[in-house]
Amino acid sequence: MSVRGRLDELGLTLSTAAAPVGAYVPAVRTGVHVYTSGQLPFVDGVLPVIGKVGVGPLLVDPAMATQLARAAALNALAAVGALLARESGLEAVDALESVVRVVKVTGFVASDGAFTGQAGVLNGASTLLHDVFGDVGVHARSAVGVAALPLGAPVEVEILVETR
Amino acid sequence: MSVRGRLDELGLTLSTAAAPVGAYVPAVRTGVHVYTSGQLPFVDGVLPVIGKVGVGPLLVDPAMATQLARAAALNALAAVGALLARESGLEAVDALESVVRVVKVTGFVASDGAFTGQAGVLNGASTLLHDVFGDVGVHARSAVGVAALPLGAPVEVEILVETR
Amino acid sequence: MSVRGRLDELGLTLSTAAAPVGAYVPAVRTGVHVYTSGQLPFVDGVLPVIGKVGVGPLLVDPAMATQLARAAALNALAAVGALLARESGLEAVDALESVVRVVKVTGFVASDGAFTGQAGVLNGASTLLHDVFGDVGVHARSAVGVAALPLGAPVEVEILVETR
Repeated sequence: MSVRGRLDELGLTLSTAAAPVGAYVPAVRTGVHVYTSGQLPFVDGVLPVIGKVGVGPLLVDPAMATQLARAAALNALAAVGALLARESGLEAVDALESVVRVVKVTGFVASDGAFTGQAGVLNGASTLLHDVFGDVGVHARSAVGVAALPLGAPVEVEILVETR
Repeated sequence: MSVRGRLDELGLTLSTAAAPVGAYVPAVRTGVHVYTSGQLPFVDGVLPVIGKVGVGPLLVDPAMATQLARAAALNALAAVGALLARESGLEAVDALESVVRVVKVTGFVASDGAFTGQAGVLNGASTLLHDVFGDVGVHARSAVGVAALPLGAPVEVEILVETR
Repeated sequence: MSVRGRLDELGLTLSTAAAPVGAYVPAVRTGVHVYTSGQLPFVDGVLPVIGKVGVGPLLVDPAMATQLARAAALNALAAVGALLARESGLEAVDALESVVRVVKVTGFVASDGAFTGQAGVLNGASTLLHDVFGDVGVHARSAVGVAALPLGAPVEVEILVETR
């Protein structure tokens, strides 16, 4: 099935994220590879939740964080798609067909010091990529728990893809 | 000397790690490069120690953490070797002969807030790669102290290698 | 304008950093890409400030941290330049003309748990790269807040560049 078809089936749409403020961009091509910037889990331009992930009062629940990782990965796809769309003249969702492999995912989880479930949280990102791309979406991954993320985001996800 | 010879001399064997649970894999090839997932310091399938690295009660001693970084790097080699073995039909230890350069190592150390010896800990990984590959194992490296790692692991190591 | 001209105009000089102690190097080439090690904000061989970044007593002020990110990025350029100089026989500052794109910047900010301004801090690195290279210096970027960095450095910056 096409990327467009899979996204439709999943009820997902790619955001048209505003360009980041500053001397950097959401994605850069080098040869057949596209690197994204670290993506925060914006939904309709807003972070639905801020804070650290863990179990306890005042912490972001791991199940919620898993959904945020999925949102961040979707934003990473949007960043790749926007670059491919500029290159090809296609719509982003169609331009993503030129992805031949999701190579690497690095996920940072703003973590309470006692929280060690970063892998589970990042499964939200990994599953999204598999849902959208099938086998081509299966990647190498690092999951890390960090002290804090920009704007108080609970998760940040960057991806590296190979294109044809 | 061959990789097999060096590993024998060092008394090391490559693990045949279980595939990670989830939509990701231990290593992915893209062109001449192989990226590994972040590797934890499993030894015989178990984390020998969990906790944060630092100096003081309840902390993982930096000397122990250095050994764990070595173990994590060995697991990263095993991940590369398993991929190369699937491609070539060789045993993993022999398939690693096709590595022409260890390009980059990124090491995350779950750190007590007062601990700043991450570089020393990561020398455990860097030395292992030099021991196994000689000059070809000399890499660029980033060492970072993080809040927490999956399963409470004290260190996590990912590598990027170039193959022929 | 040339890299040499831009650096002159900015009043900047590339350090000739001592090689890191251990089995790793400041930069590695693989194909057309050069990866640097994570660079600390050494100025004349010394970290001007150590500690965590945040707002409050005993913390490194974000404005200061932004300058440190600029210094770390300059050191990353020096690492790339030194490698290119060894390859070409040119001076480092002239050898940097062969950079055709800064692809990716990853910046780690040793952060107080309440500090969420990592993106602002990393603008120090991003702006430096834009100042030196112009459009070619515009990159993808991840900014992360971590628990601690080697030697107590407030920031660490690694870069990936494409060369001709």
